[in-house]
Amino acid sequence: MKSTKASETLSISTHFVLPNDTNMLNNLFGGTLMAWMDEIASISAHRHCRRVVVTASVNNVSFRSPISLGAMVTLEAKVSRAFTSSMEVIVDVFVEHPSTGERTKSNQAIFNFVAVDQAGRPIEVPALVPETENEELRFQAALRRKQLSLVLAGKMKPEQATELKALFVSAGEE
Amino acid sequence: MKSTKASETLSISTHFVLPNDTNMLNNLFGGTLMAWMDEIASISAHRHCRRVVVTASVNNVSFRSPISLGAMVTLEAKVSRAFTSSMEVIVDVFVEHPSTGERTKSNQAIFNFVAVDQAGRPIEVPALVPETENEELRFQAALRRKQLSLVLAGKMKPEQATELKALFVSAGEE
Amino acid sequence: MKSTKASETLSISTHFVLPNDTNMLNNLFGGTLMAWMDEIASISAHRHCRRVVVTASVNNVSFRSPISLGAMVTLEAKVSRAFTSSMEVIVDVFVEHPSTGERTKSNQAIFNFVAVDQAGRPIEVPALVPETENEELRFQAALRRKQLSLVLAGKMKPEQATELKALFVSAGEE
Amino acid sequence: MKSTKASETLSISTHFVLPNDTNMLNNLFGGTLMAWMDEIASISAHRHCRRVVVTASVNNVSFRSPISLGAMVTLEAKVSRAFTSSMEVIVDVFVEHPSTGERTKSNQAIFNFVAVDQAGRPIEVPALVPETENEELRFQAALRRKQLSLVLAGKMKPEQATELKALFVSAGEE
Amino acid sequence: MKSTKASETLSISTHFVLPNDTNMLNNLFGGTLMAWMDEIASISAHRHCRRVVVTASVNNVSFRSPISLGAMVTLEAKVSRAFTSSMEVIVDVFVEHPSTGERTKSNQAIFNFVAVDQAGRPIEVPALVPETENEELRFQAALRRKQLSLVLAGKMKPEQATELKALFVSAGEE
Amino acid sequence: MKSTKASETLSISTHFVLPNDTNMLNNLFGGTLMAWMDEIASISAHRHCRRVVVTASVNNVSFRSPISLGAMVTLEAKVSRAFTSSMEVIVDVFVEHPSTGERTKSNQAIFNFVAVDQAGRPIEVPALVPETENEELRFQAALRRKQLSLVLAGKMKPEQATELKALFVSAGEE
Repeated sequence: MKSTKASETLSISTHFVLPNDTNMLNNLFGGTLMAWMDEIASISAHRHCRRVVVTASVNNVSFRSPISLGAMVTLEAKVSRAFTSSMEVIVDVFVEHPSTGERTKSNQAIFNFVAVDQAGRPIEVPALVPETENEELRFQAALRRKQLSLVLAGKMKPEQATELKALFVSAGEE
Repeated sequence: MKSTKASETLSISTHFVLPNDTNMLNNLFGGTLMAWMDEIASISAHRHCRRVVVTASVNNVSFRSPISLGAMVTLEAKVSRAFTSSMEVIVDVFVEHPSTGERTKSNQAIFNFVAVDQAGRPIEVPALVPETENEELRFQAALRRKQLSLVLAGKMKPEQATELKALFVSAGEE
Repeated sequence: MKSTKASETLSISTHFVLPNDTNMLNNLFGGTLMAWMDEIASISAHRHCRRVVVTASVNNVSFRSPISLGAMVTLEAKVSRAFTSSMEVIVDVFVEHPSTGERTKSNQAIFNFVAVDQAGRPIEVPALVPETENEELRFQAALRRKQLSLVLAGKMKPEQATELKALFVSAGEE
Repeated sequence: MKSTKASETLSISTHFVLPNDTNMLNNLFGGTLMAWMDEIASISAHRHCRRVVVTASVNNVSFRSPISLGAMVTLEAKVSRAFTSSMEVIVDVFVEHPSTGERTKSNQAIFNFVAVDQAGRPIEVPALVPETENEELRFQAALRRKQLSLVLAGKMKPEQATELKALFVSAGEE
Repeated sequence: MKSTKASETLSISTHFVLPNDTNMLNNLFGGTLMAWMDEIASISAHRHCRRVVVTASVNNVSFRSPISLGAMVTLEAKVSRAFTSSMEVIVDVFVEHPSTGERTKSNQAIFNFVAVDQAGRPIEVPALVPETENEELRFQAALRRKQLSLVLAGKMKPEQATELKALFVSAGEE
Repeated sequence: MKSTKASETLSISTHFVLPNDTNMLNNLFGGTLMAWMDEIASISAHRHCRRVVVTASVNNVSFRSPISLGAMVTLEAKVSRAFTSSMEVIVDVFVEHPSTGERTKSNQAIFNFVAVDQAGRPIEVPALVPETENEELRFQAALRRKQLSLVLAGKMKPEQATELKALFVSAGEE
C-alpha cells in the first residue's frame, strides 16, 4: 500500500459567517463551526485513504477568541498521522482581517477517523509521510496523543506508553 | 454566590435522525451530532450560572457506534464541575431501541464553557455541588482534566499538577 | 396488548431561540415552533406504541405571547389518550426566565398521530393510563375533542356525542 | 378603512418535496409542511391589512394522505374573515399528479393572525369581503369557529354564541 | 405529442425574506435567491413536459436592486420556448411594497432544463405555444439566445446563426 | 490604488454532497450548487478589493454532467477582470474521483460583483493583473462579455463594441 504525503491531504474551505450561523452575541455558533470542521476533516481523511471514513472521536477543539458575524473563515485540514485503520486529522481555523487580509488563527481541533468497508468494518490505511518541520512535529505529537488516549481508556498500561514522557514537552502545534 | 446542584443543570433533548441529518452510510452525520451537543451543553451551563455562556473548548467526543437513520436519540447534559468563571459539561448520548425502548449509550463529549458579561469578559460562576456517586466521580475527574489541559497548554508545571498522579486511574465515566 | 402509562410517554426537548429561528419582530417564527412541536410530539406517540407514527391532525396551537430571540424554550409532550389506532398528544411549551430560571407556559398544541405498519396501514395501539389529576382531566377532555372532531367532520351525529354536553366546561388544560 | 376582497389576499407557493423534507417513510415531514403553511398564511394575512402580522393560533391542520418524496405541492392561502384586529386564513394544500397534472387536495389548515404595531400591540384591520360562493360559506363558518373558540376559552357564554346552533351543519370546506 | 401553452407552465412562489436568508447588509443573499429560482423554474419546466427535468444552464441572473430583510418576494416562472429535449424558462422576481402592495420587478433569470428518462438520457418534449405579445417576444428571443449559446460553445458557425442579426435588437424582456 | 494579482483572489471550498443537497435523481440540487458558488465567488471578489461586495449578475452557469450523492466537489473562484467598481469572478467546479483522486471539471459560472460603501453606493476597485496564460485569456474574454452585456442591455451601440469581433472566437475557458 503506497504511503501518502501530508501535503496531499490538505483540504480547504472558506466561509462567510452569515446571520444564520451566529449565536446571541452575534458570534459564530460553536455547533456550526464544529459541523464545518467535521466536513473538511473527513474530506482530508478521505483524500489520505480514498475510502469511506467515519468520525471516531474529536478532541482539543479550542475556541481562542469569538468569531464575529461577517468574518471570513478559512478551515485547513491535514492528516497528521495514520495508524492501522485510523487517521488523525488536525483542523486549523483562520480568520481573515477584512481590510488587510491578514490571517489570525482562531481555533484548532483534532479529529480521528476510521476507514471502513461497505459493511462498516475497519480496513487498513496507507502510512502518512510528514515533510515540513511542522508536519513532523505534529506527526510525533500524534503518537503521544494516541498513547494518552489508550491509557485513559484503560487499553494501555502507563509503563508501556513510551512516548508519554515527552507528553509535557511542547506538542508542535504552533 | 449560591452554589448549584448538579441535578439542577440537567438538560435534555430528544431527536429523530431524519434523512437531512445523515451521511453517505445513512448514519447520523458527526457534525450534526456535535451541533446538537453544543446546543444542549450550553443550555446546561446557562442553567448553572444564569448568564450568557460561550463555548471555550470541546474534548473527548467519542463515537462508539454509528447512529442510524430513523434512530431516536436523547442527549443529556449536566455540569460536572465549576471553576472560577468556567464550567465543564458532560453530554451523554443515548439511542433508544425502537421496539423495546431500551436505551444504549452511544456517545459522550466534554464541553467547557465560560460565563461572560455583555462586553464578553469572563465573570464568576457559582460552585457546583455533586450529589450522586456518579456526579462525585465526574467532579473529581474534572479537576484532573483541568490540570492535564493546563499542563498541555504550558500554563501549569507538571509537578504542581497534584491530581495528575490519579490521571491514569479510571475517570468515573461509566 | 399492554397499556402504557402517560408518564412513560413524556418527551422533552429544550432549545435556544437563535437568529435562524426568528421572524421580522425578532420573535420565534411560528413555523419553526410547529416543526419543533411535531418532532417531539411524534417521539411521544412513538414511545406510547413503539411503532412508526404519522401526523394525522393538529389543533389548538395557541401562541399566548411571543417568544423572543435568545429565549430558552422547553417542549414537553405527553400522550393524553389513545383510541383504536390513534393517539392524542398534548405539547406544552415553556419559556425559562434567563436570570431566575422560572418557567412560564407560552404555548400549547394538540396533535393526533396514527400508528402504521410498513405499508402505511393503521394498526392497533395500547390503551393509555392516566395517573395524575391533570393527566385524568386531559384524558377526559380528549374524548370530547374526539367527538367534536367527528361531529364537525360529519362522521357522528350530534345526539350520539354523549360527552359534548360537557364540552363547554373547562377542559382540564391549566 | 377600506375593506379587502378575499381574492386580493390569495397567496400561492409551490414546492417540490426534496429528500431534505421527508421523514422515515419517505413522506413529507409534518413539521416542514406546517412551516410552509405558516409562511404562506402570514403572507396572505399581510396582504389583507398591509401591516406586520403574528401567528395567534392554528387549528384543523389535517393530513388526509401522506405526501411522498418528489411530489409537487401547491399551497393556496386566503383570508376567510377579518375580526377587529385578527384575521382567519385558510390554507389549502394540493398535490399535482406528475404525469397528468391533476390536482388533489391533501391538507387544510386554519390559521389566525393578529395585526400589530411596532410595539407589538394589536391594531384594527379592514373588513373582508367574500365574493364567490365558497368564500361566502367560509366567511360564515369563520364566525362559528370564532364563537366556538371563545366558548372553549371561557370568554363567551354558550347562550351568547348565536351562531353555534349552525355549528353542526357542514362548514363550507369542500 | 401535444403542445403546451405558455400560460399552463406558469409557476408561482411567494416568500418573506427572513433573517436566515440575508447577508451582511441585511439584504437577501444571492445564493438563496438562486436556490428559490431554481426550484420554481424546475417546477415550470416539469409542468411543460410532465417528466423529470434537470438544470442544464443558467444565464442572465440580474440583481437590479438589493432585496431587504422583511421584503415579500414573488417569483413567477414560465417556459419561454421548447427545443428538442430542452426548455428555456424565464423567472421574473417581484418585490411587493409593504404598505401599498405595488409590485416592482427586482430580478430576472433565464434557466435551461433538459427532460430525462429514468436512466438520465434526454427525451423529447412538447412544443411551447406562446399566446400573449410578451410570450411571443420571449419566444423569438429564446431562439437568438440558443444560437448565441451554440456559437459561443463552438457548436454553430456564426454564418449559420440566422437569427443573430436580430441579436442587438431589444430582446422582449420588459 | 494598488492593483491585485489574480492569484491573490483564488478562493477554494470543498464539500461532500450529502443527502440534504440532492434532488429526486440523487444528484446535487442546482440551487444548492449555485448557493455554494455565490458564497465562494463573493469571497474571491472581497479578497480582490477588501470591501463589501454584492452580487450584480450571474451568467453561463453550465451543468455539464450531474454530480451524484457522495461526490467530493471543489469550487475554485478567481477574479478574471476588474472594471471601475465591478469585478468578474469565474467559478470552476471539479469533482474528485473517489478512488483515484483524479479531478474532472463539471461546472462553471461567471459572476459579477459590485463593491459598495456602507450606504450601498458603488465604489472604485483596484485593477486585476493576470499572470498565467489562462488568466490572460479570461481577462481578454471578460471585456468581450462586458461589451456583449452592455449591447444586450442597450447601453452600448454595437459599432462601439470593438472587442465583439472577437466574440465568436473561443473564449479562453479551458
